[in-house]
Amino acid sequence: MNKRIGKQTVKLNMPPVIISTASIVGKKEGEGPLSGYFDRKIDKADFGAESWEKAESKFVSETVSLCLEKAGLKAGDIDYAFSGDLLNQCCGSTFGLRDFNIPYFGLFGACSTFGESLSLGAMAVDGGYAQKVVCNAGSHFCSAEKQFRFPLEMGTQRPPSSTWTVTGVGAAILAKKGDGPKITHITTGTIVDMGIKDANNMGAAMAPAAAKVIAAHFNDTHRKPDYYDVIATGDLGYIGRALLRRLLEAEGYLMGDNLTDCGIEIFDREKQDTHSGGSGCACSAVTYCGYYNTLLSHKKIKKLLLVPTGALMSTTTSQQGESIPGIAHAVSIEME
Amino acid sequence: MNKRIGKQTVKLNMPPVIISTASIVGKKEGEGPLSGYFDRKIDKADFGAESWEKAESKFVSETVSLCLEKAGLKAGDIDYAFSGDLLNQCCGSTFGLRDFNIPYFGLFGACSTFGESLSLGAMAVDGGYAQKVVCNAGSHFCSAEKQFRFPLEMGTQRPPSSTWTVTGVGAAILAKKGDGPKITHITTGTIVDMGIKDANNMGAAMAPAAAKVIAAHFNDTHRKPDYYDVIATGDLGYIGRALLRRLLEAEGYLMGDNLTDCGIEIFDREKQDTHSGGSGCACSAVTYCGYYNTLLSHKKIKKLLLVPTGALMSTTTSQQGESIPGIAHAVSIEME
Repeated sequence: MNKRIGKQTVKLNMPPVIISTASIVGKKEGEGPLSGYFDRKIDKADFGAESWEKAESKFVSETVSLCLEKAGLKAGDIDYAFSGDLLNQCCGSTFGLRDFNIPYFGLFGACSTFGESLSLGAMAVDGGYAQKVVCNAGSHFCSAEKQFRFPLEMGTQRPPSSTWTVTGVGAAILAKKGDGPKITHITTGTIVDMGIKDANNMGAAMAPAAAKVIAAHFNDTHRKPDYYDVIATGDLGYIGRALLRRLLEAEGYLMGDNLTDCGIEIFDREKQDTHSGGSGCACSAVTYCGYYNTLLSHKKIKKLLLVPTGALMSTTTSQQGESIPGIAHAVSIEME
Repeated sequence: MNKRIGKQTVKLNMPPVIISTASIVGKKEGEGPLSGYFDRKIDKADFGAESWEKAESKFVSETVSLCLEKAGLKAGDIDYAFSGDLLNQCCGSTFGLRDFNIPYFGLFGACSTFGESLSLGAMAVDGGYAQKVVCNAGSHFCSAEKQFRFPLEMGTQRPPSSTWTVTGVGAAILAKKGDGPKITHITTGTIVDMGIKDANNMGAAMAPAAAKVIAAHFNDTHRKPDYYDVIATGDLGYIGRALLRRLLEAEGYLMGDNLTDCGIEIFDREKQDTHSGGSGCACSAVTYCGYYNTLLSHKKIKKLLLVPTGALMSTTTSQQGESIPGIAHAVSIEME
């Protein structure tokens, strides 16, 4: 049976249910406007581990464990794990999930990974390949700064266009049956590179990919922007969202107040000094698993288009003068 | 409909057909025993590009283009690309596929990535989410040595247990219909870590994961080792294969002469001095796309269990004293 509608979208015939989510975040995220929605806030950035990378892995294992516990499940009940992060060779995920003994698909979609994870997880469940899967993604401010930018100890100044990598992990369990929001459509993004080279302006690098996938979603589904209560990109931040609005307008889509960004929601612009907003794989993952999943479950909103956004660069490619390719994946999540 | 049989395996009801493959390799691979099976051999390691990383991306784009051309298809005919490599943030794949405008899923399974790619691609086609997908994986000796070990210019001595990263990319197009070998079952591996810490003995680090997924495949499908004409792991090499044989024997599976390894097949042990054999994402990808796909298409063999193997470490995790987790994915490919 063909489940494809239009060029980039699939409609899930048996929409998988998000039966459980968990979110564990760092101190700064726990002090932000979404504080009350996260399951746990970890005050110490090292989470009691010996390195930032080991701390990041601990965020993964603790969050997945909590997500299982909240659903009353054991690791053995899960057919696949779809997991990714920003660390070289995705080691946050590998070492975080090493002891779970779950058939494992490692993903790399930069900060769009949670969207990729939900998309592939939803196909696995809808298609009959799995009864239950866990989808997770995460990042850590300290390991990301160390790997991509400068040692924290340098206290480097950050330009106004820069974003703040969210520390945390979000995990969701998708199942064939159960109570919770359902994933009804997925629109998978293509790589879009408009030549932006400034690694401190990720919002600008990713906005064209977000605009393209959102426009593709509307075209393929014949839905209009006002169909959704909320359309939330992953981590475009203030600059990226402004660009996105203009790019979508050029495509003929006038976006209303329902357009927001997880990187804007997660931090307080005035009080938390994160410049353009939050970023990282965790940004959309914890904002969904903590905040939006709660709004959907309580029927405060009923229709969400989650669009995690990613910048597919490495320090090597930037040092070699390459521009920053962006990607974004749209996932339609609806509550009946 | 439940397509899952046993704990780790799915049986594909509408087995996707591998309608086209392409393989482009480096000079050393082109001088090896499988030389006649590869589509192109590139004598210059830099492939005319400015860096090893850009060369690796060029291998990706040229191989995917060739795979499309051999099938008489255009990029617009492909619904998804499933792609991965060993470079930090999988940049070989990103920059290689940047201009194709194909909905993109980036994968990281270390050297098991081709198995992961075929597995997810097969589910996407069998499940009705795609008509055609491209699955590819690759690696480059020079970029891998630079990133994971030492600068080539140092001329560092390699221990006998070390393997040689294969330069090249293998790409396969899976379709609902057409002529060619079919993917009938996939058995997805779990992360297995037996505490090996020697990054120059990847075969030992990965053999337990390979043994576990092969045993799971036999258990789930009720097939016996002699069902297959060839059972080929990805890049265990000589040391890893010997370990695998003993581990499977301990599980009750006596393996015959049909057990081999792509890392053993691709280089000549006597003449090419690669020590324990070939490795890298490209090892199983080009050996399948060049060699085994030809044997299957010509019905020289009819049943292949391809088991790409991966070591999920990074230089950071090794420097922090971590052991090397392994993973392997089994893909049953059969010709009627």
